[in-house]
Parts: sequence; C-alpha cells; structure tokens
Amino acid sequence: MSDSIKYLLDESQMPKHWYNIAADLPEPLPPVLHPGTLKPLGPDDLTPLFPMALIEQEVSTEREIEIPEPVRQVYRQWRPSPLFRARRLERVLGTPAKIYYKYEGVSPAGSHKPNTAVPQAFYNRQAGIKKLTTETGAGQWGSSLAFAGALFGIEVLVFMVRVSHDQKPYRRALMETYGARCVASPSSETQSGRAILAKRPDHPGSLGIAISEAVELAAQRDDTKYALGSVLNHVLLHQTVVGIEAMAQMEMAGDYPDVIVACTGGGSNFGGIVFPFLGAQLRGGKKVRIVAIEPAACPSLTRGKYAYDFGDTAHLTPLTKMHTLGSTFTPPGFHAGGLRYHGMSPLVSHVKQLGLIEARAYHQISCFEAGVQFARAEGILPAPEANHAVRGAIDEALRCKQEGVSRTILFNLCGHGHFDMQAYIDYFGGKLKDLDYEESELAMALAGLPSVAAA
Amino acid sequence: MSDSIKYLLDESQMPKHWYNIAADLPEPLPPVLHPGTLKPLGPDDLTPLFPMALIEQEVSTEREIEIPEPVRQVYRQWRPSPLFRARRLERVLGTPAKIYYKYEGVSPAGSHKPNTAVPQAFYNRQAGIKKLTTETGAGQWGSSLAFAGALFGIEVLVFMVRVSHDQKPYRRALMETYGARCVASPSSETQSGRAILAKRPDHPGSLGIAISEAVELAAQRDDTKYALGSVLNHVLLHQTVVGIEAMAQMEMAGDYPDVIVACTGGGSNFGGIVFPFLGAQLRGGKKVRIVAIEPAACPSLTRGKYAYDFGDTAHLTPLTKMHTLGSTFTPPGFHAGGLRYHGMSPLVSHVKQLGLIEARAYHQISCFEAGVQFARAEGILPAPEANHAVRGAIDEALRCKQEGVSRTILFNLCGHGHFDMQAYIDYFGGKLKDLDYEESELAMALAGLPSVAAA
Repeated sequence: MSDSIKYLLDESQMPKHWYNIAADLPEPLPPVLHPGTLKPLGPDDLTPLFPMALIEQEVSTEREIEIPEPVRQVYRQWRPSPLFRARRLERVLGTPAKIYYKYEGVSPAGSHKPNTAVPQAFYNRQAGIKKLTTETGAGQWGSSLAFAGALFGIEVLVFMVRVSHDQKPYRRALMETYGARCVASPSSETQSGRAILAKRPDHPGSLGIAISEAVELAAQRDDTKYALGSVLNHVLLHQTVVGIEAMAQMEMAGDYPDVIVACTGGGSNFGGIVFPFLGAQLRGGKKVRIVAIEPAACPSLTRGKYAYDFGDTAHLTPLTKMHTLGSTFTPPGFHAGGLRYHGMSPLVSHVKQLGLIEARAYHQISCFEAGVQFARAEGILPAPEANHAVRGAIDEALRCKQEGVSRTILFNLCGHGHFDMQAYIDYFGGKLKDLDYEESELAMALAGLPSVAAA
Repeated sequence: MSDSIKYLLDESQMPKHWYNIAADLPEPLPPVLHPGTLKPLGPDDLTPLFPMALIEQEVSTEREIEIPEPVRQVYRQWRPSPLFRARRLERVLGTPAKIYYKYEGVSPAGSHKPNTAVPQAFYNRQAGIKKLTTETGAGQWGSSLAFAGALFGIEVLVFMVRVSHDQKPYRRALMETYGARCVASPSSETQSGRAILAKRPDHPGSLGIAISEAVELAAQRDDTKYALGSVLNHVLLHQTVVGIEAMAQMEMAGDYPDVIVACTGGGSNFGGIVFPFLGAQLRGGKKVRIVAIEPAACPSLTRGKYAYDFGDTAHLTPLTKMHTLGSTFTPPGFHAGGLRYHGMSPLVSHVKQLGLIEARAYHQISCFEAGVQFARAEGILPAPEANHAVRGAIDEALRCKQEGVSRTILFNLCGHGHFDMQAYIDYFGGKLKDLDYEESELAMALAGLPSVAAA
C-alpha cells in the first residue's frame, strides 16, 4: 500500500520575504476611507492603531517584503510547515484526483495565525509598544497573539466574543497560560461595550463589537496599539509564507495545483496560500482555479454586497471596500467561530470582484462529515473552520471521480480542532443543526450600509 | 537576542531499527511468570493476547530490530520529531545550563504513544486480527491506538478509567472521531467489571481494572487481541525511535547530554529517550546521569517494592518483577492520569535496581508551575505528565545556576496538553491540591503482594 507522503522543506528554504500581491494586481485596491470624513485615509490616520512598520506594509506595492530575522527565528520553531499528499484519503474516496494539503496546525497555537501574530508583536515591540489589544472569535487568533506577546514581552488583552468565551473555557485558559488577559465582549471595560450592555445585558457579542472594544482602548493610549488577526493587507501579506512554501513543496512533488481550496472568514488563510500562486498566474504563469469556501450562515462572498463598510459595529474603524453583509449583521452561532465575520478582506474581495476566484458556501454538518472522514484517513483532526476547506477539496475530488479525470487539488488545512471537541461531540450526538440567517436581517443590515460617494 | 533552536533530521535519517536494550544489559531481566502456575512463561502462553511478532520482540535479545517499511511510512507523517534547544527558557531561568528537549507532541494524537500504537496495529493486522482491546487513563494511549486502528482497518475498543471518562469527554470524542468505541471502566461488558460494579456501582475505576477488562475480552476470541500502551518490553522497544533520533540530533548540535530527564508512569516515554543513550554507555560510551520523575502520589520507583506482581487488579495478567505499589493500590486522582499506575516497566525497574538511573517524586502544583513557565518561554503547552519532566529539567538547570556550572540537560516533552486544559484552569483557579496517598493503604497493598519463590 502506498502511504500518504510528507514534503518537508529544509530550514534554509524557509521564505526570506513575504509576497505582496498588490504589486501584481491588474487594478489597484480602492482606497481606505476615514470613518469621520469618508475621505481617503493617509498613513498618519492609522498611527493611533498600528506602528509605522505595519502601516507601511498595509499600503506598500513592493512585490517582496523582507521578513525580519527575529521573526524568522521564531518561525523556525514550526516552519517550514509540512505539505502532505493525502493518498490515504484519495484511496478512501476512490478518486483519480491527487489531493495535497498544507498543514498549519503545527504551530504552537495550533493554526496559521502565529504567522502574523509573531511579526505584529515584533514590529510593535520594536516601536516601544507595551500592550496590544485585540478581539477573538473562536480563540485561535487570541491565543496566537497571546503566544507572540509572551515571546516579545508585550502585554496582551483579548476581547473574546461572549458566546465563545462562555462555550470555550479551554481556549481562554490557553491564552491565560501564555500570560494574556481574556475578557468576555461586550464588556464593561469600554464605552462601546457598556453602551451595548446597557441595552441588552446578556448580549452574546460579535466580532464587530469585540473589534470596537479593542480599537477604542488602543486609540486612547500611546503605549497601546491594536492588532487584527485577518482582513487587513499586512495580515494577508504575513500569511503568504504558507503559499510560498507550498509552491516550493509542490515543485518537490513534481506537481502543480489545478485547483486551490481554502476556507474564508476574514480571508487570511485563504490569501496566505492562494496569493503566491495567483501572483504567478498574474505575471503570466499557469492558470489555477481558486475556490473560496465560506459558511452558508455567514456568506459574505456569495451573498454580501461589494461596498464600503465599517470593520466594526461601533463604526470606529476606517471604511474599506469589501464583500459585506453589513456591520450590524449578526450571524447565527455555528461552530466555525473563526468564520463568523460580516465582512471580507478587501484584497480577497477585490480579486473576487475581478473574477480571479470562485466562492462557494457550505452548511456545517456536511463540513463536519468531511472532517471526520479526513481524520480517519489522515489522522489529523481539523478545526471546524478548516472542515470547510476539507469539504471543498473532497467535493472537487469526487467531481474528478465522476468525470473520470485526474486533477491536482491543493487545500489549506489551517488549524487543528483540539480546542473544538464540543463541536464534534454535538456532531456525533446529532445535535448539530444547519443554521441559516434570517433573510430579513440580511436585507436590513445591507440597507444600513453607509452611503459613500464612489471614490 | 539568540532564539531557541530547532534541530530537525532529514527523513532519510529516520531510524530503520528500534534499539533493544536487552542486548546490552549487564544482567538479564528476571523471567515473567504465569498467573496460574507462577512458573516462567513460554512465548505460547502469550498468544491469546498478542500476535507472535510482538511476542518475539518481547523476549528478543537482538540489539537491533528492523522497523517494517509500512510502519516507517506512517511514522513519516510526524517523524523525525524535532529536538529543540530551549534558549528562551534558559534565559528566563538565568542558568548557565544548556537545556534541550525532544518534542513528541507533534504526532497526530499529540504524544509519543503512536510510536508504539502504529507498529502494534500493523503486526496485529498482519496476523489477521480484526479487533484490539485496550485500556486508557488520561486518554493519550486510547486515542493513539484509535488513530492507528483507523489507519490499518482494525476495530478498537477502549476501556477508559471512569473518572477520566467522565472528566475528559474531549479525549473520548477524539477516540470516537477516529472510529473507536470508548467505554467507562469498570463496565458491565466484562465479568471483572461486573464483579466490581456489584460491590460498588459508583467505582471510579483504575488502570489495573481497565486492563483486566481489556485482557478478559481479548482472551475470549481468536480474532481479538490486546494492546498495552506502556510497561512491556516491546512497547519500550518501539519508543526507542525517540532516543535514537535524539542522539543524532544532539550530534547535529555538537553536544551530548550530561543529564537526561523523563517522567515515568509505566515507563515508555522514559525508556524511549533513555535506553539508546544508556545502551551506548553500557557498551563503553560516555556516562550519562539519568533521572526518572514520578508523581509523589503514585511513587512506584521511589516508594514501591521491587517484587513480582500482577499488572492488573483481577490478576488475569502474567506476573513481572517490577517496582510496584501493589496491584490493589488506588492512587488519588491527580491530573497526570497517564502516571497513575501501580507498577513500573520491568525494564525500567531493572535498570533502577542495577543503579543505572535515579528517581525523584514531585507533587503536581510545582509541576504545573514549571509547565506554565515553559509555555510562556517556549510556546508549547505540555501535558500534565510531561510537566513532571519539565519540572525535573528546570530543577537541574537551577542547580547548575546555584553551582555556577554549565551542564547539558536533555528532557523528553512527551506530549501536549491540549486535552488537559481543565487541569490548567484548576491550577490558575487555585483549586489544584498536592494529593498524597494514605500510608496505611500503601502498606496494605504492599502486604498483599503475591508470594513468589525467588526465580
């Protein structure tokens, strides 16, 4: 029996640069707007929130941006991460397709998130920042920033969406083990939190609210900045180590993807694996089909509007043009908490708008089904978010079987599910439901989009 | 700042053989006795429980035993595992010592246990076995055998100590995700389980009882065998991939350990990292100080008697000469469930008796303290069992600081603690206690040891 195969790069092959897709876009990104004036933002407008090094990356159009050596030193703990050919899964499916996956669950915090948490902590430390505030949904980002903060001696305060905070005490415990403080959001520690609690003391929270709280605190103090785990250009930039490595590993395997599949919440694991391949295509290289998989209960790419919107609920953040369900949209409480965001990364939205990628929405039960099938074949238990990518890849492989053709499928297994076992228990116990949002709520949220004159 | 360093072997350097310390022992192991006759056992006596390939390994005195290629293929998913120089931890401790750790938490099930679960499933599959029964305490072994069973198409039934079964639903869910069935022990599925439940329906269970249940079922059917996750010679043999790799990695680092530290429950992660170094020493190589760390609440090496005893409570297993607290001893419910066993591997007991290793017992709170310090410095959250090794290594490093000398310390970080977060929550909440056994209970259990004429 031929077994699954691991492709591992030598440490010397770990990327020295991140890849910036802004250099290769056929059209530039629409400008970011100031929340007060609705006019295009200058770099200085972002200084209350981010150190200048990150702001420069946010607006850069350089193709390659050097990864600082102290960041590479930390990356080396788990990078280059392995790429696997899932031959055991192929056999179970009886597909002629070749399925490869990049595994990002090998990081200490268990997902791709440390790829950006580490440089963000590094640049903030370099700028003399003492404290970082952030938000987290499922907890993968919060624990990654807690990890990075511990390494660089930065205090970390995490606003965790209340429903996740209460359902996932183990994620919170992981953040606390790393030395971070984790607060249920909405909280009484901020004005925006208190305003919401005054109206509804048992509010379950949302990523949009947690962002408002974190941004509010960061803006108040010079020694405190804000960190975001997805959506922004510099976050996706940092994640491109995933795709750059994957390109070298596919070359090791003597293969090249026909299809790349990744799940999308804010878009960072998607951009991370996809952009280096898409950039090569934009520069005249081989064309790749690219499929974004999103949850049917929070379908920004497939059902959202491509429009200017705020990143948070209290409208403290700048406005970006993106696929959005509206900043007041509250998605139902499905298990992939990392995908429960009303908006989508402007970069991912832009390439979707340009017709360079496809998007599909899945309900959660079929994703868990795929995750269990994957775990039994390949031994790795995926996070609920990653199960969306697994489902997408399996569906592509089954289509190959149906059509009797072999294609090379690559997907991003962005994290393990060790802290999401309650979701699996619910799945096995038949308690999982395929949740849907209310059409009327979506319509209302979309109707509430800010009216912005075309830039 | 000089960061922690990873030493990673090339796949081509993955061991092709396991190392069998029986070849280098200055005195042979005392014989194993039949539970009925109390006479030395022949290989045939073990055939109801194990396939012949494993029985041969159990009694072999060949120095090198080849790792079958299908086992190496599965090993390659996570092996060779990394060895790290913990420079960030060294800096936090301010020690002149060099601290290295071998990290076995990279396996799909999260610990060293798949190193033996995979070959055990392979040999059973080769012998046409359809089903394996086993026991588990903390759940690391049960989930590892479930993983291996899924890969080789073998049904797995796990008897999980009831107190762990009820406290750790997530470990159970992991086993079920891999397709195994997990039953709380004592159960009504076996005669030995029913006998205990009849006396005490709410019995919390113990590893000794769970072993009785698993052995009873395996002995009844030709297509069913039994698998053990520690203690036996062949299990420790399989774990030597850890130490063989570590030797090559220490050579990469241009260093050699003065001290090796590992935790001991049944002895398998300890034997795995220690025996290749100890064997080299026995063949005339450099002398290494070797320190076994055990829980003060279940201190077989430091407080047990070196005597013949049963491996289980119902006395269905053969008798081995080992350090034991008595098969009726029930340790208090501390959090490192993988170390809650009344006996110790005969091989580890033997080298202890020969004065080749030291042993120390620690209470749990100081071990969690060490684990949190390690997590904040190195980013990896250790399992409660592994925290004992971390504490031991930190204490050695602090002694170096006190004495103003540098020594090279190597320890085995045998697994991550992702499924043990409740223990960390209890630790942070001040709810953890340093448990002790009752001296009178230990005396009674030791008095009940079977009387066996000197072999």
